[in-house]
Amino acid sequence: MSKPTPLSGFPEYLPAQRMIEQRVVERIRTTFELYGFAPLETRAVEPLDQLLRKGETSKEVYVLRRLQEDPNSSDEASLGLHFDLTVPFARFVLENAGKLQFPFRRYQIQKVWRGERPQEGRYREFLQADIDVVDRDTLPFHYDTEMPLVVGDALRSLPIPRATILANNRKVCEGFYRGLGLEDPDQVLRTVDKLDKIGPEKVAALLAETAGATDAQARACLALASISTADGSFVDQVRALGVSNDLLDEGLDELLRVVEAGPGLVRAELKIARGLDYYTGTVYETSLEGYERYGSICSGGRYDNLATSGTERFPGVGISIGVSRMLGLLFGRDALTISRSVPTAVLVALPNEDVRPASNRIARSLRERGINTEVAPTAAKFGKQIRFAERRGIPYVWFPGADGEPDQIKDIRSGDQVDADAATWQPPAADIAPEIAGA
Amino acid sequence: MSKPTPLSGFPEYLPAQRMIEQRVVERIRTTFELYGFAPLETRAVEPLDQLLRKGETSKEVYVLRRLQEDPNSSDEASLGLHFDLTVPFARFVLENAGKLQFPFRRYQIQKVWRGERPQEGRYREFLQADIDVVDRDTLPFHYDTEMPLVVGDALRSLPIPRATILANNRKVCEGFYRGLGLEDPDQVLRTVDKLDKIGPEKVAALLAETAGATDAQARACLALASISTADGSFVDQVRALGVSNDLLDEGLDELLRVVEAGPGLVRAELKIARGLDYYTGTVYETSLEGYERYGSICSGGRYDNLATSGTERFPGVGISIGVSRMLGLLFGRDALTISRSVPTAVLVALPNEDVRPASNRIARSLRERGINTEVAPTAAKFGKQIRFAERRGIPYVWFPGADGEPDQIKDIRSGDQVDADAATWQPPAADIAPEIAGA
Repeated sequence: MSKPTPLSGFPEYLPAQRMIEQRVVERIRTTFELYGFAPLETRAVEPLDQLLRKGETSKEVYVLRRLQEDPNSSDEASLGLHFDLTVPFARFVLENAGKLQFPFRRYQIQKVWRGERPQEGRYREFLQADIDVVDRDTLPFHYDTEMPLVVGDALRSLPIPRATILANNRKVCEGFYRGLGLEDPDQVLRTVDKLDKIGPEKVAALLAETAGATDAQARACLALASISTADGSFVDQVRALGVSNDLLDEGLDELLRVVEAGPGLVRAELKIARGLDYYTGTVYETSLEGYERYGSICSGGRYDNLATSGTERFPGVGISIGVSRMLGLLFGRDALTISRSVPTAVLVALPNEDVRPASNRIARSLRERGINTEVAPTAAKFGKQIRFAERRGIPYVWFPGADGEPDQIKDIRSGDQVDADAATWQPPAADIAPEIAGA
Repeated sequence: MSKPTPLSGFPEYLPAQRMIEQRVVERIRTTFELYGFAPLETRAVEPLDQLLRKGETSKEVYVLRRLQEDPNSSDEASLGLHFDLTVPFARFVLENAGKLQFPFRRYQIQKVWRGERPQEGRYREFLQADIDVVDRDTLPFHYDTEMPLVVGDALRSLPIPRATILANNRKVCEGFYRGLGLEDPDQVLRTVDKLDKIGPEKVAALLAETAGATDAQARACLALASISTADGSFVDQVRALGVSNDLLDEGLDELLRVVEAGPGLVRAELKIARGLDYYTGTVYETSLEGYERYGSICSGGRYDNLATSGTERFPGVGISIGVSRMLGLLFGRDALTISRSVPTAVLVALPNEDVRPASNRIARSLRERGINTEVAPTAAKFGKQIRFAERRGIPYVWFPGADGEPDQIKDIRSGDQVDADAATWQPPAADIAPEIAGA
């Protein structure tokens, strides 16, 4: 085989970074379960027609075929890899509604795939950690206020910079645009969504061109999008723009509840819109202090019509942590570290190959008490066995005693070496497992 | 959307079974780490030419393309989904050899995909849990004896029937066939591998036809394949067949070490061969008591030539637990259960919607001490709120006290209801998290 090379957009971690990822996922998962979300995994594939219900995403989908499949046969449904976890979840709920208890709270932590052009923090294969609540027919609004609190707790459990959840509500935008007299609010929303990319001048010009906005209407839309407050004062700022509309009132009331439920965590940020068009009310994005220019690391919103079949309707609200995106940004600045590169706490040395059974017995005794232990690969000189441990960050080397002498254990960081009994020796709590820390 | 239906070969679990799967994986992972294996994940895709190096598996591979990809463009390498975790691991080792410490011990727990016809315990998407050790140039044999011990510990940590690891060694077979005078040992091995499917008569006929075996040679091959012992007595049984060959001697010595390292766990089973042709010595399969007819739930072996590039060579040995296959068989007989269907231990009741903030504070206080808690979705009658908990198996319902009265907690299994303080109340250890048990 010629020497293989990496595939752009498909990041792979060495074990140390993989251990960081595992611990990050474990803390996120623990937080999700503290709030009573139950775990779910869906298959990696969905029928292509499900994935393409929203035309916008069609360019990103990976389509599958079996290598030996007859290309002219139509026996098998066309399958594609899922590009998020919300569309598969909505499908799962419809498929299994008779077996689920509603409201249904679930979390789902899985890889997703998108054939986009890779860039920093954007991959073709990446890990997402989602929570959603769905109910039959109607879903109480208080769940919209709970989502940011769960994610806030999950992110605060990690040694990472401070996260701020930015919230908006599509009803605010649509009501405001309608109140202004603009008749295609979706088109206005899509145009305003380009604000960060093309700037206010070009947005105003596009609003005139594509949504028939007058200069005053365009300026009002831009004024709305510029509102950003850490408390409920956004309501007065919107009112001061002099637009009145029932849907706007409803949206302001909802957004106020979301912002006031998370003081110091949630901001009202009236320019955010979210690209996927299944959201119907609350929308969330999340900025990470120092990494704002890379965009949101955690997004979601309320979708009242995504899981709908015939007369059955399951409105939902959810939010999704972009684990790979967040880790990619932090790894790029060496901002997350781990105390060693292997799970092993103790290396049992091997004086010579004949005593391997004795070294194995020591290892077994330590493992029985939960201490991660491996035995030296060969009976090399002890100096070489110690270097084996050092290179991996294994903190302890165990020396079996010869001829009735007691065993000894050496902390290779301090050089301290003391007598030890494999049936009772215990490492300090900080050495039991690799631990993560911020930079 | 019309009501979706399941896809054959792509099993999905409801949350209760997903929680069982999580716990099974967690115990396997804990055991792997006790032996010092470090975690790794590789991307789901590999270049197609890597996946097709072994022609046998080509029919099973899922090939990917981006929906908007120009079919005539050759910019992008053809990609396929991995069908096991060994081939990607070998590729990863070659790609990252300069950054790894050898011998390199890693575990990898991931989904794999094969486009095979689905049947009981055989899926198109399934979860595997692998351990492997690779070294540069040569790998000490003692690792071949360690693999069954790790898997034995992992399986014994689960509430499942007893597993027996069946071992053989390709050197035994090849040396024996060569010693007999048969010159195409690979062809003989492939034919003998059909023994369980087609029986001894047809194997003997095929050996004559495809490998030029005489009747005596064919009978000797069948006699070898019939040897199965729980201890080292297989050596004498092979010797009694009167064949001598150096490679045979080497294989018998190796197999003896594997069997003797795992008394009561490992059997010599001289008919097993493993279909994939990268194995060069030890091979493993695993039978689960009561499920023998479904075949191996955990397989692997020694591969000296899989990770090789130019002058670099990384021999390895590994074994893979078929998690989905094992769970599929056990779920099919309701042989694994869990104590409840959600992580939640406590449901905080809601006397009326106005006191939701007070119920939220109680929930927060319990969560801060690690107790999984959710708040009732609506202020329905208490009977309905208790049924909400019952249907999910949530063991406790918390009633906030009105007008200065103390809060109370009800164990809804016993009906016991007592005063409780959210700052100090602790559930019994068995109720903290859902626990798995055998049938």
